[in-house]
Amino acid sequence: MTDEQQIRDLVTRWMAETRAGNTPAVLELMTDDVVFLRPGHPPMRKAEFAEGARAQQSGKAPTFDGTSEIQEVQVLGDWAFMWTRLSVTATPPDGGAPIRRSGHTLTILRKEAGRWKIARDANLLALE
Amino acid sequence: MTDEQQIRDLVTRWMAETRAGNTPAVLELMTDDVVFLRPGHPPMRKAEFAEGARAQQSGKAPTFDGTSEIQEVQVLGDWAFMWTRLSVTATPPDGGAPIRRSGHTLTILRKEAGRWKIARDANLLALE
Repeated sequence: MTDEQQIRDLVTRWMAETRAGNTPAVLELMTDDVVFLRPGHPPMRKAEFAEGARAQQSGKAPTFDGTSEIQEVQVLGDWAFMWTRLSVTATPPDGGAPIRRSGHTLTILRKEAGRWKIARDANLLALE
Repeated sequence: MTDEQQIRDLVTRWMAETRAGNTPAVLELMTDDVVFLRPGHPPMRKAEFAEGARAQQSGKAPTFDGTSEIQEVQVLGDWAFMWTRLSVTATPPDGGAPIRRSGHTLTILRKEAGRWKIARDANLLALE
């Protein structure tokens, strides 16, 4: 597999493991120093991501489903960046109406021990 | 100057030229294939950026002022990425109240003919 194919595979696995609620597998797909940037929130690190994912598994947080279309991948040695068009549907645990967000992501990736991982991520999704 | 210092200088010049309304100088600070990503908008390319800047100079669009604090810069050969904490105040041309937005940016930079330029930019600013 080329690096670009491995990165495309990472995105597919990220979506599948998120959908399945498999938090340990999702955490394996990011670097330890990962930073998630979102509008209206402070930067989120790996520990906070894990905490949010645990809340989800306990049934107190929405479940997520979505589709990601990669618009560009550029590999720069052991680093890479990509941007995607992403749509995500969040379903509340209390039976409330699903909430749909869509927009773009800009992501920095790093290759660690031969495996691509998400290192920095900007999530630009807005309510539809 | 190190690459990191040149990138910090680029950010300072970007803010100064934007404040001054010097569109040709701002356009020189981005690659021809630049992509700007924002929540709730389609990707914006260089031609659209220039069009928006021309509207600003004609007095029909807000003027901008702001401050940018670089949180991280990583240089990867002729590419680099950075993320910043950014606050921007937009002042409408009709004397309306200024609008203040703040948040983060994640930016990919490329070195072209010895000069760093903005190549991809995710703007995560939200209303305060």
